Amino acid sequence: MLLAGCGSGGDQRSETTASRTQAADATSVPSTRHPELRWRMASTYPSSLVILGSMGKRVERLVREISGGRMELRFYEPGALVPPFEIFDAVSYGAIESGWSTPGYWAGREPALQLFASVPFGPGAVEYLAWFDHGGGREIFDEIYHRHGIHSLICGISPPEAGGWFKRPITSPDDFKGMKIRYFGLGGKVLERLGASVQLLAGGDIFPALELGTIDATEYSVPAVDLKMGFYQAARHYYFPGWHQQSTFFELMINLDRWRALTAQQRAIFKAACSANIRQSLSEGEALQVDAIEKLKAKGVVFHTWPRPVLAALYRAWRDVAAEMAAADPDFGRAWKSLEDFRRRDRVWRDLGYLKDDVGAADEPAESAPSPTDGNGPR
Amino acid sequence: MLLAGCGSGGDQRSETTASRTQAADATSVPSTRHPELRWRMASTYPSSLVILGSMGKRVERLVREISGGRMELRFYEPGALVPPFEIFDAVSYGAIESGWSTPGYWAGREPALQLFASVPFGPGAVEYLAWFDHGGGREIFDEIYHRHGIHSLICGISPPEAGGWFKRPITSPDDFKGMKIRYFGLGGKVLERLGASVQLLAGGDIFPALELGTIDATEYSVPAVDLKMGFYQAARHYYFPGWHQQSTFFELMINLDRWRALTAQQRAIFKAACSANIRQSLSEGEALQVDAIEKLKAKGVVFHTWPRPVLAALYRAWRDVAAEMAAADPDFGRAWKSLEDFRRRDRVWRDLGYLKDDVGAADEPAESAPSPTDGNGPR
Repeated sequence: MLLAGCGSGGDQRSETTASRTQAADATSVPSTRHPELRWRMASTYPSSLVILGSMGKRVERLVREISGGRMELRFYEPGALVPPFEIFDAVSYGAIESGWSTPGYWAGREPALQLFASVPFGPGAVEYLAWFDHGGGREIFDEIYHRHGIHSLICGISPPEAGGWFKRPITSPDDFKGMKIRYFGLGGKVLERLGASVQLLAGGDIFPALELGTIDATEYSVPAVDLKMGFYQAARHYYFPGWHQQSTFFELMINLDRWRALTAQQRAIFKAACSANIRQSLSEGEALQVDAIEKLKAKGVVFHTWPRPVLAALYRAWRDVAAEMAAADPDFGRAWKSLEDFRRRDRVWRDLGYLKDDVGAADEPAESAPSPTDGNGPR
Repeated sequence: MLLAGCGSGGDQRSETTASRTQAADATSVPSTRHPELRWRMASTYPSSLVILGSMGKRVERLVREISGGRMELRFYEPGALVPPFEIFDAVSYGAIESGWSTPGYWAGREPALQLFASVPFGPGAVEYLAWFDHGGGREIFDEIYHRHGIHSLICGISPPEAGGWFKRPITSPDDFKGMKIRYFGLGGKVLERLGASVQLLAGGDIFPALELGTIDATEYSVPAVDLKMGFYQAARHYYFPGWHQQSTFFELMINLDRWRALTAQQRAIFKAACSANIRQSLSEGEALQVDAIEKLKAKGVVFHTWPRPVLAALYRAWRDVAAEMAAADPDFGRAWKSLEDFRRRDRVWRDLGYLKDDVGAADEPAESAPSPTDGNGPR
């Protein structure tokens, strides 16, 4: 009922889901009737979508629980308040207080924000957080967003994505030539360089395009999400790893004036809710994939790892793309250099400190130690 | 002044440090004069010790900030309230409300708690959290602690440790025979099986023992911590990776009756503070090691990776030790089986989803891609 008055033009099915979810949540809301803060958070992902959307719903819950019901960050389904890709403007102008998104969606506004979403051949979650928190990432991020009247908090992380769904196996970098493919962000630019025709379709448009042959291939997310999207019904070759998104940051965008008007405690609560969401997204993201992989195998999906020459070609193309983008946009150049410098030094530690995956595996029973296939074989 | 009345017999130098730190903190405390909750947290690590102790100080600050000063979790230096190894009993009996520790210190009470601190050849941080949150770990952990009147929250993580400091290079598993070494927890049991004489000395006792020759070798923590401990002055061969502690959990122990008496919001605040501490310990732990490594190299420390046959022998010895401990203690057996089952399934995902470290490295300039040495060479 609350929703009926504040949204229009949204997707009807999503709104129904939202109403139901919020009604269920209401039973656990503490009895405080008049929150000291009541914000709307417009989401780019439906709450029904595991990880991408459910992380946003969890932030809503965490803020309520930690504040004892005195702060309300109400999740709105995509389109219920504003169309997903207009959230940046709506938060910037203060039409809505906050949004749930990934910085990678705002490439058209600020190309450098893509480096705060996911980087091809880029860092995993812990190294990415280390750069952001201690390597200079946060300062550049804040500066770019503040210019647009937005303060954004990194507020969730998804695990490595899958490399994509293809109708036929990929055996050489040449296979990308002329391929019509849906691919996200910087990874899409890499495939373009290898001759693919890349489109960025929104989630709901991908499956029909793949089924009708408008596109030949697609990537979208991690196995647990891809399973729900049903891509296996239209393409059965599933590639790993997702070289383009080894970890992906999600964000809570807040109108800058609103952020600045908060008390110290309110800011601490938002930051703690986002850190708690990060901890939970890290463990949940890791734990949810195996079930999905088993279900996809049962449906006849063929699992592949990228042939080594294909990965090497993708890597070289990415280095070229990054250099060009750094030359074209000063903020991109600055953020890219900061990340590269951090990772160059960090490599010394990663190489020393981390046990390699294969140690011990040779001594384990065969079923728990699959031999690595560095190529095209089904697994 | 508060401290003067509540501790005695503690280390004088530590108390002074604590008083100074707490006085500085007081300036940023919100003006609420009467917190609704005021707890003492006895620490097993001094606040001056980076990561191990500073994580505990951070929890104190996070609880204050998130609660707007209404909840106070006051950090006490080791010995200021109770001797470090008596914290378990003091929290259990309710003599103090809470403690800052690692579950691995309570092996004498419950051997299974060691599996919630760090596991030889065990999971890294994300996989460990995934098992704890979603693989059945938390339920076993709670059951064991509740039996002793304690509720514990995993509240911090340290990165992979170093493998230890040795006076002479290690070239074969036989080199451990008869060696007098300080080693923590389950890793120590592994070295005993290879013929070493293992002691668990507290932090401050290690350096003198190493210098005097009472022990031949030691491990303690990560490079940033080991640097502060000064071990390089008594042994110059530093081994990686720390096969015995690829990630280590730290905990906020709370008296169970006190935990049960909390409001839902107070619990949410403690949990959020611990999750925020985990996020920050992950990124800080990653970011702090390279500087320390460079400083240690400048001091003439020789960096080694374990020869492969040595790692393989350690791995086999650990499997034997784990099987024996699982047979001897039902809780250990249950927790070990739960962890093993989770990791066996998760390996499928890790193998598919994660980009291997060496991808792309071959294409990078030489200085940023050190060639892996699988042996004994200085690096």
